[in-house]
Amino acid sequence: MSDLPSPQIENLFCHIPAQLSEEFVEILVKTTYFHLERIVSQGQATPPGQWYDQETHEWVALLSGGAGLLLEGDPEPVVMRPGDHLLIPARRRHRVEWTDPTQQTVWLALHFQ
Amino acid sequence: MSDLPSPQIENLFCHIPAQLSEEFVEILVKTTYFHLERIVSQGQATPPGQWYDQETHEWVALLSGGAGLLLEGDPEPVVMRPGDHLLIPARRRHRVEWTDPTQQTVWLALHFQ
Repeated sequence: MSDLPSPQIENLFCHIPAQLSEEFVEILVKTTYFHLERIVSQGQATPPGQWYDQETHEWVALLSGGAGLLLEGDPEPVVMRPGDHLLIPARRRHRVEWTDPTQQTVWLALHFQ
Repeated sequence: MSDLPSPQIENLFCHIPAQLSEEFVEILVKTTYFHLERIVSQGQATPPGQWYDQETHEWVALLSGGAGLLLEGDPEPVVMRPGDHLLIPARRRHRVEWTDPTQQTVWLALHFQ
């Protein structure tokens, strides 16, 4: 029988600051090779003209709320709804065009080499 | 501008076999250092007397449904509801006591060294 204390349960939809003037980012798991983040947005978007251009791959899932994600070269953003996920390869430039201003959008993002 | 085809969006709550006689396990992302799985259960549990005893750490999140997860040494299973997540250290023995028989329980499990 293990003497370790029991792992602590947390909830992805709880412990979010009431006022989100900026996106809320929290690292859930981190190793040398990857890190897993929870991100909470409410109305935030990538500033006009800016793109994410990352050296690491990113698997991203939207768990609540909604967002428009534009991949460079695409004519329109993809609309993400709860449960939607996709893999963005390293160096594929992308931006968040919008997130739902009326509710919290909770994301999981797994960045890896 | 990238010439890559656009990443494909999938949904964690879709494309699940209608009849789940066994748990449905699908690898979403895999590298040398980790793999991320989607697991769908409906009423399944770890067989009586059996434990998971893994060489890798496991971060697990329950996204829909409900389950009872027993960590060896604990008096009671922890009841997991949507959004609940926890980190199970390598070699911490655990078992799924129950999953909701009336709906699909969707999990994410990230196994890593």
